[in-house]
Amino acid sequence: MRVIDRRHYLGCLLATALAPQRLLAQGAPTWTEADLAQAHALREAAMQDSLAYQLVDSLVTEVGSRPAGSAADARAVQWALAKLNSLGLRNVRAEPVTVRAWRQGPVSVDIVAPFAHRLVATALGNSVGTPAGGLEAEVAYYADLAALKADTSERAKGRIVFINNRTERSRDGSGYGNAVLARVAGAVEAARRGAVAVAIRSIGTDRDRIAHTGGMRYDPQLRQVPALAVSIPDAELIERLQRYGKPLVMRLQLQAETLPETSSHNVIAEIPGTDLADEIVMLGAHLDSWHVGQGAIDDGAGVGIVIASAKRLLDAGKPLRRTVRVVLFANEENGLNGAAAYADQYKSVPHQLVGESDFGAGRVWRLRSRVHADAVPALQQIARLLAPLGVESGDNNGSPSPDAGVIVRRNGWPGIELTQDGSDYFDWHHTDNDTLDKIDPATMPQNVACWAVVAWLAARSSQRFGAPAA
Amino acid sequence: MRVIDRRHYLGCLLATALAPQRLLAQGAPTWTEADLAQAHALREAAMQDSLAYQLVDSLVTEVGSRPAGSAADARAVQWALAKLNSLGLRNVRAEPVTVRAWRQGPVSVDIVAPFAHRLVATALGNSVGTPAGGLEAEVAYYADLAALKADTSERAKGRIVFINNRTERSRDGSGYGNAVLARVAGAVEAARRGAVAVAIRSIGTDRDRIAHTGGMRYDPQLRQVPALAVSIPDAELIERLQRYGKPLVMRLQLQAETLPETSSHNVIAEIPGTDLADEIVMLGAHLDSWHVGQGAIDDGAGVGIVIASAKRLLDAGKPLRRTVRVVLFANEENGLNGAAAYADQYKSVPHQLVGESDFGAGRVWRLRSRVHADAVPALQQIARLLAPLGVESGDNNGSPSPDAGVIVRRNGWPGIELTQDGSDYFDWHHTDNDTLDKIDPATMPQNVACWAVVAWLAARSSQRFGAPAA
Repeated sequence: MRVIDRRHYLGCLLATALAPQRLLAQGAPTWTEADLAQAHALREAAMQDSLAYQLVDSLVTEVGSRPAGSAADARAVQWALAKLNSLGLRNVRAEPVTVRAWRQGPVSVDIVAPFAHRLVATALGNSVGTPAGGLEAEVAYYADLAALKADTSERAKGRIVFINNRTERSRDGSGYGNAVLARVAGAVEAARRGAVAVAIRSIGTDRDRIAHTGGMRYDPQLRQVPALAVSIPDAELIERLQRYGKPLVMRLQLQAETLPETSSHNVIAEIPGTDLADEIVMLGAHLDSWHVGQGAIDDGAGVGIVIASAKRLLDAGKPLRRTVRVVLFANEENGLNGAAAYADQYKSVPHQLVGESDFGAGRVWRLRSRVHADAVPALQQIARLLAPLGVESGDNNGSPSPDAGVIVRRNGWPGIELTQDGSDYFDWHHTDNDTLDKIDPATMPQNVACWAVVAWLAARSSQRFGAPAA
Repeated sequence: MRVIDRRHYLGCLLATALAPQRLLAQGAPTWTEADLAQAHALREAAMQDSLAYQLVDSLVTEVGSRPAGSAADARAVQWALAKLNSLGLRNVRAEPVTVRAWRQGPVSVDIVAPFAHRLVATALGNSVGTPAGGLEAEVAYYADLAALKADTSERAKGRIVFINNRTERSRDGSGYGNAVLARVAGAVEAARRGAVAVAIRSIGTDRDRIAHTGGMRYDPQLRQVPALAVSIPDAELIERLQRYGKPLVMRLQLQAETLPETSSHNVIAEIPGTDLADEIVMLGAHLDSWHVGQGAIDDGAGVGIVIASAKRLLDAGKPLRRTVRVVLFANEENGLNGAAAYADQYKSVPHQLVGESDFGAGRVWRLRSRVHADAVPALQQIARLLAPLGVESGDNNGSPSPDAGVIVRRNGWPGIELTQDGSDYFDWHHTDNDTLDKIDPATMPQNVACWAVVAWLAARSSQRFGAPAA
């Protein structure tokens, strides 16, 4: 077991820029037998622990949806401070973050020809509203975003672009990744072609009359057109209607506004380390949600999982060497403001490992690292300890969840991805259906076990994990 | 093959009241070999027929939801007349029916204490509205209707009664049957105890943030209190909130009204019989829907199935003996007005068999009859012909679907139940989720095959099926 004092560490940090591999221990075992025995004990104890589910139940029942900058968001911050204090975590604090606050008012979407139908719809996050009297135009139908991008004609001009992009179900979320650009970039591509609005098929894998919201962006050089999503059965109705070969006319009415910048908070709590207390093992989740649903799977589940993991370490009472820090980020959904603020504020504080739980409550099935090559064997050793929980050892191209990803990329810190089974995550993601019942209480302890073991071993490691070579 | 002329039949009809069994042929085979061969051919041809799905697609795409007495209901009648004529059916007509027309305007349900939540809710059919400014009161929580009925205290007085009745999933709909009284009778039981409103957990088997509507009734001796259903995840939220042991306060706002009686139509079409043309084999479905969804499984599916079954018989071109009549009933959902009108209007016309398809688009798995005991072997013979389609032979206590059930009971006519697999029917029943995508196109031809065989053999039978002894 190699002990490094802070002065030595800072010297090493300076050296990192030149030769990061020198940071990493050579030869010495990364963990003592006692460390590994404790990891085993943590894993087993966590599998019996229902705290994570209790926490998400409490958050969604007492607060519910909590869009960044809203009154409910402020209540969520108070909820988190009270919970973290009552659980006995240390250095509990709320750190101000300036956030973009966007609000959706009433929305209605109607087909007025060839046959009248009222659709189920939601605005996309950051969308502008329609004129007060609404907006009516013929629909220019595109099977997917590629078809829109390929259109060099005038067909979309003066029309409402509709994009019928499908989202494939996948365990790892790749189906979402392939589809989501229709949501993010649809308004830009529509405006570029002179369209007056864009509506998309919800980015989701369900077949419910419930629309999926989510962030979108504008190009400052182009007109900002209202952007909406309709439910998947409604998208299929539009698909059938356009086959009639008659003018398909849609009427939109939407109130939406982006408020002047307002304030929210990252909520932080720690279990202080011992001899390497200045080095941080960060377990993240995000506290905000979209305005729909209760924010249970996104990301109440992660909030419960990382707090419960830290509580496991606290209750075990063993010295941690490094400080384990829980960070509940502000405004992940609509700008990643909390992650950016954190990365700035702590950029000079060495981080041993940065991770986040933000993909629902499904079982962890893979560990992927994003560390210096010399530390890969250590991360693989962690994966082997998690193998009895059904966790595979993945590659070193890990993609930590959104906030953690921002931080890892900005500050060049080592990261970890505990890949959850997201097969049904996009049935409910960013919808009114994101409620407590979508969480299986039986899958949460396995998540807690994984994060507790990762945090413990990262904190206790004789080796710094370092970032991958750029 | 026994041939009976009309005069003979009317004589028999008179005799029926005294000794119904005398109506039934003794000894002679019920069907010729040619009849049975044709039944086999119809069954095989129907299994390749996609017309039923095309019809429900057309109805829900071109009309959508069509509550009785609405403009959409009138469009549905026009749609049906046009389709039935274009398919070549005969005696196509719309017969006026006076219907109760109920309308729901905006509805909002909020929990205001102990924690603020907006719920997803719908009015129950026939509910009165709240006062214009809404209605706010503490909730009196009951786990089920039995708990409310057992309450002899003053607890509900001045409060909003909440009934958390669960609906169990079942293939035959028995779970719905066990739960639905909370919806139908909840307002009466609440009013009897001085409550100001009733809200129920949706009668459904899903876990979507979509509420289930459906009919309810008032007691003319008691106050009419607003009646609503919240989605199942919202009911679970209320269940969690009441465990906090603090006052649980709900605010309701609902616009709803029952309009002066208005007019709709039963739509009827026939394939005229030959020597027994005055006797009717009736295949029913209902044309109306609730105001939510598209009315695809309830009962666009049935409309498609019975029309396609009749079209099979028409296209086969074989003489039918009895007349096969398709009846698309008005206002099944909110009063069974069309069924009652039909039963009155045709009470003197002999009906050989009365059936209805109104349980979605799932496979038929059982044939139950409701005929005279002497005809049971004939019905069992029909069931054996359907066995290759996975149909079991059931008992003679069949319960024909709602409209057919009304007619069978009122007029003492023989009935048939082709029991469909309704395992997922109550996930979507009476909700915005009742859309075309909930129908599996692959299960509809089996339904058409069953009804075509039943109609053919009922029309051709040498035996009258008669009603069960009272």
